[in-house]
Amino acid sequence: MPADIGQEAADRLAALAACSAPGPGVTRLPFTPEHRRALDLLTGQMQAAGLAVHLDAAGTLIGRLEGPPGAPTLILGSHQDSVREGGAFDGAMGVVLPILAVEALRDRGIALPFAVEVMAFADEEGVRFPTALIGPRALAGTFDPGVLDMADADGVPLRTAMTGFGLDPDALPGLTRDPASVLGYLEVHIEQGPVLERSGAALGVVTAICGIERHGVVLTGETGHAGTLPMALRRDALVGAAALVTEVDRLARDTPGLLGTVGTLALAPGAVNAVPREVRMTVELRAPDDAVREAAGAALTAFARQMAASGGLGLDMQRSYAQAATPCDPALSDRLAAAVSATTGKAAPSLPSGATHDASAMADLCPVAMLFVRCRDGLSHHPDEFAAPPDMAAAVSALTTFLTAPDLARRL
Amino acid sequence: MPADIGQEAADRLAALAACSAPGPGVTRLPFTPEHRRALDLLTGQMQAAGLAVHLDAAGTLIGRLEGPPGAPTLILGSHQDSVREGGAFDGAMGVVLPILAVEALRDRGIALPFAVEVMAFADEEGVRFPTALIGPRALAGTFDPGVLDMADADGVPLRTAMTGFGLDPDALPGLTRDPASVLGYLEVHIEQGPVLERSGAALGVVTAICGIERHGVVLTGETGHAGTLPMALRRDALVGAAALVTEVDRLARDTPGLLGTVGTLALAPGAVNAVPREVRMTVELRAPDDAVREAAGAALTAFARQMAASGGLGLDMQRSYAQAATPCDPALSDRLAAAVSATTGKAAPSLPSGATHDASAMADLCPVAMLFVRCRDGLSHHPDEFAAPPDMAAAVSALTTFLTAPDLARRL
Repeated sequence: MPADIGQEAADRLAALAACSAPGPGVTRLPFTPEHRRALDLLTGQMQAAGLAVHLDAAGTLIGRLEGPPGAPTLILGSHQDSVREGGAFDGAMGVVLPILAVEALRDRGIALPFAVEVMAFADEEGVRFPTALIGPRALAGTFDPGVLDMADADGVPLRTAMTGFGLDPDALPGLTRDPASVLGYLEVHIEQGPVLERSGAALGVVTAICGIERHGVVLTGETGHAGTLPMALRRDALVGAAALVTEVDRLARDTPGLLGTVGTLALAPGAVNAVPREVRMTVELRAPDDAVREAAGAALTAFARQMAASGGLGLDMQRSYAQAATPCDPALSDRLAAAVSATTGKAAPSLPSGATHDASAMADLCPVAMLFVRCRDGLSHHPDEFAAPPDMAAAVSALTTFLTAPDLARRL
Repeated sequence: MPADIGQEAADRLAALAACSAPGPGVTRLPFTPEHRRALDLLTGQMQAAGLAVHLDAAGTLIGRLEGPPGAPTLILGSHQDSVREGGAFDGAMGVVLPILAVEALRDRGIALPFAVEVMAFADEEGVRFPTALIGPRALAGTFDPGVLDMADADGVPLRTAMTGFGLDPDALPGLTRDPASVLGYLEVHIEQGPVLERSGAALGVVTAICGIERHGVVLTGETGHAGTLPMALRRDALVGAAALVTEVDRLARDTPGLLGTVGTLALAPGAVNAVPREVRMTVELRAPDDAVREAAGAALTAFARQMAASGGLGLDMQRSYAQAATPCDPALSDRLAAAVSATTGKAAPSLPSGATHDASAMADLCPVAMLFVRCRDGLSHHPDEFAAPPDMAAAVSALTTFLTAPDLARRL
């Protein structure tokens, strides 16, 4: 075991980052030669830590440390893939740090009362195919075989990409785990936000993965010449859109836990001297509490209707996407918080995760918990994405403390 | 003279509308074969009305009715060109109706105490070249020879296009008129807005051509993941832009005579789950009173600065364009209003022109007045642009009344 675990983690992540398609940052999509090279590196790390390695039919690389006969399994993992021109930490760090933790326990001669599996899921980002989370969904038994027919931008179906990678998609149903055999799932991930950095904490414990809903909004007014259409006769779609943008922001700022974002907005006809006829925009809401999010969605829909009616605008507002929140398991999270506190000497901040993770799908199988590691400038999905080696060392330390907590197996 | 002058005007405009490049509506750009065909038709109409016709070096077709020796000239005119896929009335109607008015006076054996010229300017819309108003500017002596080097989208310089049309650009300086020789300029035009239609009036008298200013605004915040960037830490460029859109609309509605429009708005990065980093937008203000417009521009700039500072946003707001208002001549306009009232039996509505016209440039030479004709649905620059034959007949009648007003020449 290296003396400087943080630096070792950084070195391993740098080596993985080199497994990338050309271009800035890291571009490692599932079932590609880059994916293969990354698995080769991770296989070596897992074997060096004493794990028995295999690749399952979903493309999940699994390193297993056997426990006592009949003992349940604690799963630690994250995803190997990146977005296009992403960073070295999102996903990969959640595989490398658990391997280092297991390696540290082995070096210290500690045997655990349960089995441990470290997993590198193939595809969490959903960049190559219009689906994601194949690996954890296969384990949880929630995998929909219909997605195998979805194709990437080159027209390659997922099924073909998987068989080309040496996988057998028809074996996916057999991957489903018995919930009784799984103690829980713990995922380490960079925060992808600024909360820990602002609070001066290296590590934080996730309370829940936020639920998400998205609305597509089309406001329709009437165009006209900006010089000849009197103000009193205008039905300006952009003026209505501005009111909705303002209200989304106000409501989110006034509602604890709620995030509200208008991330896209396009208008027509779009000329300096033409009153906007149409605005198409999106509204996204996230909250760790589904009731809070759904109430906000309903309030914004009511606001938009009222605003459109008073402005003489047509309104088409459709909820295009909804995903329930995933609460983290309180018992696992409390234990994780205790381990963080023992490592850092401070109470562990707790915070929601605004982004989706493999843990979202694993929650259908077992209790889940997530450990967030501080990242620089809240940056992720970017070549400059960075977590500091001492923070990663602290995470490995918290993991080993968590794994060796005397009462962890008793929650079965 | 035809019995139904309104229908005759409609027929002549339909014939002119056929002088168009292929496609919907009318596309008649300056110094093109379509322009030539339109001038051939107008030449015939002018000659039939007893006018002596020539094409000046700017491409303005001029039909002159001689007056008493040494008498000044009253000019009536508008432009022959259209926007791409425009209508049959914008511009052309302001040439056809004065010809009909002169023809009616001749039929009635009325001699005027001044000369009359009916003009069809080549280019008011500025669609083909990034300049416009060559004809009236040449008459007013405000023509900038530098624009002759400007090229159209095919790389043809204006100078080449003009010489290819048989014109001599070097003769342009010689076109400048002596202000003492010009009694005034009267332009008939469709309103291009809904004011007359809403007030049930066929004709209206323009008080002023609005001044215009345009601002380019760039608001710069910070992007971030819509799920991981807490509301309290956001610097959302779109939220700032929405406040400015709302304020432009509020200020314009609350300020008599002011029109305010945000006609373009584009954001980056523009993803459903990304906080907008940057918004680029335009603000256009128009008012018949320059002081009102300039005060509004200053107030909006101050608002934007305050809003950007409080939202933590960068602001770059530049006035990219400014054009002073052109007040119409009160004496000419009063006489025009009296002629409208005599024709329609009702007081003539007065209204500003939000759009620029040939009259804007002619105002540098002489007093100007404008007669607006009601158009359907306020529509212009569109194939469905329409003025009703009875409204055009009323305009011709008002023109003949205006031309024969006993005191018109006395204002010299």
